[in-house]
Amino acid sequence: MKRYETIATNLAEQIRAGHLPVGVRLPSLRHLIAQYGVSQSTVFRAYYLLEQWGLVRAEERAGYFVTQGATVKEKAAANGLSTTPTKVDISDLVFSVLESARHPDIVPLGSAFPSPQLFPSARLLKSLVSGTRSLSPWSTVEDLPPGNDHLRQQISIRYVGAGLSVSPDEILVTNGALEALNLCLMAVTRPGDLVAVESPGFYAALQAIERLDLRAVEIPVDPVSGLDLEALQRALDQHPIRACWFMPNFQNPTGTSMTVEKKRALVEMLRARDVPLIEDDVYQELHFSRDRPLPAKAFDTQGLVMHCSSFSKTLAPGYRIGWASAGRFADRVRRLKLMTTLSACIPAQAGVADYLQNGGYDRHLRSLRASLQSQLEQMETALRKWLPDSVRWVRPNGGYLLWLQLPSSVNAMALHALATERGISIAPGPIFSATHAFQDCIRLNFGHPWNPRFEEAIRTLAGILDNPAVHG
Amino acid sequence: MKRYETIATNLAEQIRAGHLPVGVRLPSLRHLIAQYGVSQSTVFRAYYLLEQWGLVRAEERAGYFVTQGATVKEKAAANGLSTTPTKVDISDLVFSVLESARHPDIVPLGSAFPSPQLFPSARLLKSLVSGTRSLSPWSTVEDLPPGNDHLRQQISIRYVGAGLSVSPDEILVTNGALEALNLCLMAVTRPGDLVAVESPGFYAALQAIERLDLRAVEIPVDPVSGLDLEALQRALDQHPIRACWFMPNFQNPTGTSMTVEKKRALVEMLRARDVPLIEDDVYQELHFSRDRPLPAKAFDTQGLVMHCSSFSKTLAPGYRIGWASAGRFADRVRRLKLMTTLSACIPAQAGVADYLQNGGYDRHLRSLRASLQSQLEQMETALRKWLPDSVRWVRPNGGYLLWLQLPSSVNAMALHALATERGISIAPGPIFSATHAFQDCIRLNFGHPWNPRFEEAIRTLAGILDNPAVHG
Repeated sequence: MKRYETIATNLAEQIRAGHLPVGVRLPSLRHLIAQYGVSQSTVFRAYYLLEQWGLVRAEERAGYFVTQGATVKEKAAANGLSTTPTKVDISDLVFSVLESARHPDIVPLGSAFPSPQLFPSARLLKSLVSGTRSLSPWSTVEDLPPGNDHLRQQISIRYVGAGLSVSPDEILVTNGALEALNLCLMAVTRPGDLVAVESPGFYAALQAIERLDLRAVEIPVDPVSGLDLEALQRALDQHPIRACWFMPNFQNPTGTSMTVEKKRALVEMLRARDVPLIEDDVYQELHFSRDRPLPAKAFDTQGLVMHCSSFSKTLAPGYRIGWASAGRFADRVRRLKLMTTLSACIPAQAGVADYLQNGGYDRHLRSLRASLQSQLEQMETALRKWLPDSVRWVRPNGGYLLWLQLPSSVNAMALHALATERGISIAPGPIFSATHAFQDCIRLNFGHPWNPRFEEAIRTLAGILDNPAVHG
Repeated sequence: MKRYETIATNLAEQIRAGHLPVGVRLPSLRHLIAQYGVSQSTVFRAYYLLEQWGLVRAEERAGYFVTQGATVKEKAAANGLSTTPTKVDISDLVFSVLESARHPDIVPLGSAFPSPQLFPSARLLKSLVSGTRSLSPWSTVEDLPPGNDHLRQQISIRYVGAGLSVSPDEILVTNGALEALNLCLMAVTRPGDLVAVESPGFYAALQAIERLDLRAVEIPVDPVSGLDLEALQRALDQHPIRACWFMPNFQNPTGTSMTVEKKRALVEMLRARDVPLIEDDVYQELHFSRDRPLPAKAFDTQGLVMHCSSFSKTLAPGYRIGWASAGRFADRVRRLKLMTTLSACIPAQAGVADYLQNGGYDRHLRSLRASLQSQLEQMETALRKWLPDSVRWVRPNGGYLLWLQLPSSVNAMALHALATERGISIAPGPIFSATHAFQDCIRLNFGHPWNPRFEEAIRTLAGILDNPAVHG
């Protein structure tokens, strides 16, 4: 974390805690320069960041003032209430965190991806070659959206395996799940609309909402009890919510999953108000229990659930092959795809289709799930060994992400900054919320084969937690 | 064309010609049902289409009325004046035309793609394999935007060959040029903004403008003299134009190119008002003269020109590898890419990079250009043989698209409908304009190896032109 980011984070903390109430003028430039021993431009950049976070506003020649709502929003989230609609300013924060995790030497505890070493890249390349060879030269026209027929059939077959029926005609192949989710959101919203998201939740949802000039309504997710359906009902009663973007299975970042009853209740609640659900189900195949969990889409009789997933977390991270089964919005989503990126890579589509048919996907998945489960055990052992008892987590039943609740005095952004300096990436809680809440939480990735570097990194994190600079 | 589309097209013609002036009530339901012998729902759908085209508006219990501007816009375009800003409703029309061209048996004169048979697919697959083999497992993280290093170096080297210097750092790899163009447009506009486009021009620009809630200002392009710079200057003087989306080389659909002087003047004109230019240069490598034409970007000293191109028309149509060199907006465009589709297919990037270095791209391009040029000659011979002398065109000096000016009585939408019935696709003029102008123009594709089917198709088109149903 740069110097100005530290200053901004410290001030943000004070604002959120109510020490700097709404309308109060922030410390003067001169004051901060003296306090932190930094240059004027560093202070300016800190104020600029606070402004981007929506916590302060500048008034010409008068200084910076704490904005309406900067404190209140945080309180609402902490109380588990549905927050007021929020204009989202998440991107700078997310990008600075993501950038810091990209250096190859860094220990990738903050990564969003599982280790590529867990994937059958040689076997997949074989399928890429035979799939591509089998393409007609005209495939560049024929495989335009909705996409390669063979691949859509294979995806449809996997739905059957999960206990639901989705026709290949409904399936649109996309550039990863991220494009699927973005297109679905675009298909059902207009600028200014309200979208319900999970809090904490996947930052890409917040980025999409920001990019499309939408507003987020954050619905609390508890690591134990999951999405707060009552809060969702209140939000639906109070606000004209146009869409929901949720992750019912192995939610990012908390790892929690909805029960079958809860998924059914969710779909029924949205049906009653005709609100579409964008269902992010990218970890569906990474379950540790015997059976693959049902998606919420299984309970949808109205074509209201837009189910999005991909092969990026399970088979082929770089191929960028995902899909959307967008129910009654399928045609609109397909058109948006044609208008924005035309088509997913056609050899990659053929390659994944060939692999699904001939490559032994289920065998690979069994081995991948076993690896993830054993890595989780190793990480938990290390966490119990090195971290104080006050650090808590709920063991997820799938995926590769672990959500840690640290002592409430911890500032995860400061922890992130110091960890980065020590060559360790972590995902700090504030990137998972439009209001930069969850200052005392971090997300860790156990998607990498365990090795002494990880053990050492956990030990280092424990040391940093002892540093007073990450508290208060 | 469906029955209701025919009715809508006929009425649109009458509105545009001024036979149904602004404010006039359209014929009653009963009247049209009697006139065309169709059902009430067919008439409703026709009216709905007219409404979507922005030509009529519904008034409850009073009927449908011709809208302000429906006639005027057309006149302005015909006079070569910059039109008033237009809310765009192009997609339905474009999609219905594109769908009709996708059947494998149809003669693809309306296609937007060159024949895939002209591309070295076997050699490219070899590069796909060796490129993919050379990737580190960590490439799925390392090759996130801006993209594969090797590929960006190769693209940078090709810029040098064209006479300009673009650093690999400025280059962002995208899912084809279409994504590059869309991201650039998104980076420099907000909903409601005005964007200058060419008229006739690439329908994807109009679709993007529609999708992003922007408004189009159409700048006339003459097949001989090209973009009307004076009209652009007037538009810049009169309207707060936020961006231009132009195609200075081998413009789609007219095939016209700007001279070096004109490109320089264009860039200077935009620099004076600090208006970014989104430069669509996808046909840059398909020049028939000896040297590759310079892009407008060559004259940009301010980072205002966002140069977009791809390998889809020259090498690897299904790989979906394009790029944007977005000048001072490069960082913003890269972030939008990360947020919307994350990354282009990583094996495909590596494959194209390997091909550029080892595959003999320049040799392939020489042969491709020679094929296109000879196909153009064969098409011109057939056109001269079968079509009446009143059909005119300007021979393009690159690309694979020919813009035909038909007798002014021709209705290209009706021609398209009848040609489709006979198994021939053409691209009718109205899909290249926000106001559905160019009713008497069509675009033909000479990107396919000439064969008797094409000769026969031209002959069939000539026959259809004799049909009174396509006139008036």
